[in-house]
Amino acid sequence: MRIQRNPQLNSNGELIHLLSTEGLSKNMLTHMLDTAANFVSVSSRDVKKVPLLRGKSVFNLFFENSTRTRTTFDIAATRLSADVINLDIAKSSASKGESLLDTIDNLAAMAADIFVVRHGDSGAPYLIAQHVAPHVHVVNAGDGRHAHPTQALLDMYTIRHFKGDFTNLSVAIVGDVLHSRVARSNIHALTTLGCPDVRVVGPKTLVPQDFSHLGVRVCHDMAEGLRDVDVVITLRLQNERMSGALLPSAQEFFKSYGLTTQRMQLAKPDAIVMHPGPINRGVEISSEVVDGPQAVILSQVTFGIAVRMAVMSIVASHEA
Amino acid sequence: MRIQRNPQLNSNGELIHLLSTEGLSKNMLTHMLDTAANFVSVSSRDVKKVPLLRGKSVFNLFFENSTRTRTTFDIAATRLSADVINLDIAKSSASKGESLLDTIDNLAAMAADIFVVRHGDSGAPYLIAQHVAPHVHVVNAGDGRHAHPTQALLDMYTIRHFKGDFTNLSVAIVGDVLHSRVARSNIHALTTLGCPDVRVVGPKTLVPQDFSHLGVRVCHDMAEGLRDVDVVITLRLQNERMSGALLPSAQEFFKSYGLTTQRMQLAKPDAIVMHPGPINRGVEISSEVVDGPQAVILSQVTFGIAVRMAVMSIVASHEA
Amino acid sequence: MRIQRNPQLNSNGELIHLLSTEGLSKNMLTHMLDTAANFVSVSSRDVKKVPLLRGKSVFNLFFENSTRTRTTFDIAATRLSADVINLDIAKSSASKGESLLDTIDNLAAMAADIFVVRHGDSGAPYLIAQHVAPHVHVVNAGDGRHAHPTQALLDMYTIRHFKGDFTNLSVAIVGDVLHSRVARSNIHALTTLGCPDVRVVGPKTLVPQDFSHLGVRVCHDMAEGLRDVDVVITLRLQNERMSGALLPSAQEFFKSYGLTTQRMQLAKPDAIVMHPGPINRGVEISSEVVDGPQAVILSQVTFGIAVRMAVMSIVASHEA
Repeated sequence: MRIQRNPQLNSNGELIHLLSTEGLSKNMLTHMLDTAANFVSVSSRDVKKVPLLRGKSVFNLFFENSTRTRTTFDIAATRLSADVINLDIAKSSASKGESLLDTIDNLAAMAADIFVVRHGDSGAPYLIAQHVAPHVHVVNAGDGRHAHPTQALLDMYTIRHFKGDFTNLSVAIVGDVLHSRVARSNIHALTTLGCPDVRVVGPKTLVPQDFSHLGVRVCHDMAEGLRDVDVVITLRLQNERMSGALLPSAQEFFKSYGLTTQRMQLAKPDAIVMHPGPINRGVEISSEVVDGPQAVILSQVTFGIAVRMAVMSIVASHEA
Repeated sequence: MRIQRNPQLNSNGELIHLLSTEGLSKNMLTHMLDTAANFVSVSSRDVKKVPLLRGKSVFNLFFENSTRTRTTFDIAATRLSADVINLDIAKSSASKGESLLDTIDNLAAMAADIFVVRHGDSGAPYLIAQHVAPHVHVVNAGDGRHAHPTQALLDMYTIRHFKGDFTNLSVAIVGDVLHSRVARSNIHALTTLGCPDVRVVGPKTLVPQDFSHLGVRVCHDMAEGLRDVDVVITLRLQNERMSGALLPSAQEFFKSYGLTTQRMQLAKPDAIVMHPGPINRGVEISSEVVDGPQAVILSQVTFGIAVRMAVMSIVASHEA
Repeated sequence: MRIQRNPQLNSNGELIHLLSTEGLSKNMLTHMLDTAANFVSVSSRDVKKVPLLRGKSVFNLFFENSTRTRTTFDIAATRLSADVINLDIAKSSASKGESLLDTIDNLAAMAADIFVVRHGDSGAPYLIAQHVAPHVHVVNAGDGRHAHPTQALLDMYTIRHFKGDFTNLSVAIVGDVLHSRVARSNIHALTTLGCPDVRVVGPKTLVPQDFSHLGVRVCHDMAEGLRDVDVVITLRLQNERMSGALLPSAQEFFKSYGLTTQRMQLAKPDAIVMHPGPINRGVEISSEVVDGPQAVILSQVTFGIAVRMAVMSIVASHEA
């Protein structure tokens, strides 16, 4: 009888699915970043392709729309020479009232190798991973408020690229932490990789005190949150929340928590500014900062392709 | 002057289009199943590709939405190394009031090799096949209530795979036979392949008596329909019909004609259960049967890829 | 300091973007037509592919829907062996309120090589071309009422194919010239290529007198417009204009300006009839003319693939 705590690993401790950064070891995260480093150069070559997943079928299953994230996985899989099937299930009548697992069984029967899954419900990719055959792999492309592990890995890659090491860093995650799967996945990755000072910064409605259980410092004041940090990760303020009860208005938010050039002077002089995109200029971040020398937002996008190539090539090389 | 009765065949009797199982010989159907057998292994290989249609352009023309069926053709063509263009014309403004044949002429002028056509109107793929140039091929992916020949072929493949031969079989097709192109195509294929006992089973509103003209037995009682059969093909009950005048309700239908474990005891002990998908659990079939040992529904899906690869490679190898 | 008048050319005078036929030299236009001639044969080969853009990423950015035009670029790029990402931004929530240039920066960071851009605003492709890095190329697939250069080039290719030379030709462009980017791009191309007699023909509301500044003759009478011409380019009458103030009705338009067999007798006996598609039969052109021997409308489509292959391969071979 095989006991397996972490559904992301096989009995040899190898990664077979990427569902969350939570529960992955420092070695495993580092292995993914190291593998991604090899793929960064592929996208700058004249012929941007390697034959690693040739003849494999990658299904992009987006139960929640995200053209941008889907595109990054499409490109990553294509540069690995895989065949990609894009299914925007949110828009299509693909499921026709069918259950999630019936849909998965059906697509798996077409000989799928990797399912890239975006779903509005937290945990949906876990359900799928536990259901599929041993040679099929699941990559979580964002589930509910739970996790967005490839975004966290590309953020870690970006931090390591610009800062070299995590063990002396102060990192501030600013904005709507409560509803953010990006924030959760980044917190787990940063603490696992040895970052000693992670701060979550925002109003009490969006950054509740109990986040401190995750080993981070809760700050409701930007001065406290940004002081002497090496890295600022700004979160996107979802449009649908701006008019809700949690926030007075976008203008009001920017006044109190928008990342401006002035506020960036609280951080270390060589601090970098990150954002998962798409950016709301003038809401969570000023245009001056976005276009300024400390922003590494487009590097995140570039590294994101390499990280997704790494993740897919790693999981595809193991069996459950 | 060339006289050509069957628009699916050229003057040498070779298949140039697949429009219907009706009018194809037993030899032709068997040839397609034999060819598919060669392709089943391709999808279980490490590199799931063969170069048979490399550099060919396959256009998936879906005038009626069906993400699932389109996906199976997309995968089949991609595994044959073809270039695939997916056109969901139902959703797009592609036609802009243009006539069907003007749209076809236009796409053909882009050097199309195969048109895979799903259309709400019975006969549309025939119209297209009669219109295109000799080197262009049409595969019917479902037209109105008329025909769905690749579904019928994958059903035949599945039956032959599990039962070996057609000449001693009893097959029941259960449900909304009246509106089902799957039922029509299966009836033609089964009778041509020598199946001596084909029964169509359902309420009088959905299984009219005149189906007996097709050489099948009409049964309005499940006990009579299922008794000692080797194969049960359950049809999907279209949602839009459930609240119509033809049926009291989904619950009512299930009570009278739903395929349950209990009813399956009327069939032979080794009978198989098939369904074209997507399944309405608890409407035309119980979850227990779907997930039980007699269901071969996912095998149908797997064989469906191989059958579509076979059909496309066969038609592409002949000229009109 | 580099002074560069034409944003389509680098300092060596080589084409790096295709934004408009305006401002390109006769030599440059001829070079594109000559290159396209090499690609016409590719689409008639058994394997319709050349490896010129293998491993390159082509992004089809359609801010305005056009399944048909997008398909032609998709096919052209695929036959050059490029990887194609189709983004129908009009339909998707891809931009999520993001600015145009933030969207472009983001996609460019994924290592795009060519952006094919269709946009409702005149000038949008220029904005993008001025913004992207030196190794990234922009091809205008239609911007507002401004330009549609690949359509003009395929029209020029078609004319040259059937008429050999431009220097003795009379060409009539008939219909809604005012709102037509096709007309504008064709006028620039024809005059640059030495066509001595270009006429724009239609009612005063759709063909204002000031078009004469472009070096063409304005005709409000079909007899005058068509007399002894070698080429008739019929424009599509946009459905949304037919019920507007500019026109009484589609029937009324056809009566005065519809291209009929009878009116074609005014042209030279060997005159050809062109149309950018999709055709409104019975509005701007009669079915008899569309299906008649003088129409070369489907040849335009075929040449359009070759012209787009030529344009992409040319721009991709130069750096800014």
